Amino acid sequence: MIFSGVTRSTELSISNRGLAYGDGVFETMRVHGGELPLWPRHLARLREGARRLGIGLPDPAFIEARIAEMIDGADAGVLKLLLTRGDGGRGYAPPVDAQPAWTVALHPLPPMANAGLRLHVCDMRLAIQPALAGIKHCNRLEQVLARGEVERAGCDEGLMRDSEGRVVSATAANLLAHRNGRWLTPPVVRCGVAGVLRGWLLAQGLVEEAELTPGEVEDADALALCNAVRGILPVSLLGARNWAAHPALTELQARLAMAYPMFSNPAVGA
Amino acid sequence: MIFSGVTRSTELSISNRGLAYGDGVFETMRVHGGELPLWPRHLARLREGARRLGIGLPDPAFIEARIAEMIDGADAGVLKLLLTRGDGGRGYAPPVDAQPAWTVALHPLPPMANAGLRLHVCDMRLAIQPALAGIKHCNRLEQVLARGEVERAGCDEGLMRDSEGRVVSATAANLLAHRNGRWLTPPVVRCGVAGVLRGWLLAQGLVEEAELTPGEVEDADALALCNAVRGILPVSLLGARNWAAHPALTELQARLAMAYPMFSNPAVGA
Repeated sequence: MIFSGVTRSTELSISNRGLAYGDGVFETMRVHGGELPLWPRHLARLREGARRLGIGLPDPAFIEARIAEMIDGADAGVLKLLLTRGDGGRGYAPPVDAQPAWTVALHPLPPMANAGLRLHVCDMRLAIQPALAGIKHCNRLEQVLARGEVERAGCDEGLMRDSEGRVVSATAANLLAHRNGRWLTPPVVRCGVAGVLRGWLLAQGLVEEAELTPGEVEDADALALCNAVRGILPVSLLGARNWAAHPALTELQARLAMAYPMFSNPAVGA
Repeated sequence: MIFSGVTRSTELSISNRGLAYGDGVFETMRVHGGELPLWPRHLARLREGARRLGIGLPDPAFIEARIAEMIDGADAGVLKLLLTRGDGGRGYAPPVDAQPAWTVALHPLPPMANAGLRLHVCDMRLAIQPALAGIKHCNRLEQVLARGEVERAGCDEGLMRDSEGRVVSATAANLLAHRNGRWLTPPVVRCGVAGVLRGWLLAQGLVEEAELTPGEVEDADALALCNAVRGILPVSLLGARNWAAHPALTELQARLAMAYPMFSNPAVGA
């Protein structure tokens, strides 16, 4: 499953299956001090996504060398890695001789909000598809359409439910709800993405998985979003509900910042 | 919503949202005698897909001129048209100033089976997502994975069910089942693609929409697949069930060939 990694920085063939069918996976990673502090977790998810889709994983050492070259000296930024099944055919059948193609691109760090996020409750639902749940594949029209709603509503992010009404996540972040003294996050086995930062929080025992209804989310003592680019961000508004700063959230942010200083955000955490 | 249509035949930017998120729609069309006999139906579906996804539709006259140029003198072939939201951003939010990008490519006609098709019953299900049902968008991982199953099973195509067990279609064709003297095809309002040839058959009153269970499909008097590249193809095997030639199928193929001679196939229809 090792391939000789072609990296192309400015173009990909129009017969690339990523373009034709979203036939690929990606990772969006925070660069800090010329490194990717969460790389092992990103690589693990990339590996799992490639396995689930049957895409050959390029030699990680080769990817790592190319990444190191690209982020060397970059104090801060966002690195996007895209792995597709490569070129092949007009039809859906994955070519037996497919040569996976991958590419990396470095982007500036997006502006970080220093106020709580306002969440729109999206009409767009996440379809239930266990075969694709958890991995960060490139079939993202649901998120694109949901994010369009968020923009039109003038909000910062959106709360997404699955087609049976369970709360799943935001459009580009996982959800953390503080209830009865515990931080909870919905499972991602039916749909949604297993966020890298969510995975770290679960592994540390700081957050637990739990099914959440929209009512339970609105009723939470504190609400936050997390992802591997922005860290943990407080939610200040959802529907009719407002939240002020909460000590449990300050504490959770502090725990994260201790392990990963790049996520220190005095304007939010202080 | 008209844009100045850029056609690039060999490359697209790696920041194209089709590549990043499958953020686009496509059409796969049969070329015959230097023309696209089903173009008006393809254009209608393209228009509907662009509308549903909020992608600006290029001026059809501009597309048509480019297509005419490309297929001029081509006696037979398959033309693929891909329309994406264009370049833009690292995030899911559709850029407000997105410049849609489209491309066309001409491929040889695939070999046409002259025996009945053997269908594999796919484990991979189609998720229920009304917001994306019917249109031919570029989020096709379900079909890619299902088609992988078909290949491994050594079959020609696959029968796909939705996540609640209803029969929907094949991986790249609609399904036609003959029961009680009528041709039936499942609805595509929850998932699946509204095939152009399926649309023509419905409009002619030759086929009706009906929910079908796997049992009802296995129990059909005749079974066929249809799409706009291959026409109507008989199914000879599904699970434990075999079908021989059926006069209702010969009749349906003849009706199609009368309207669209490109779909005459003596080896199948005779």
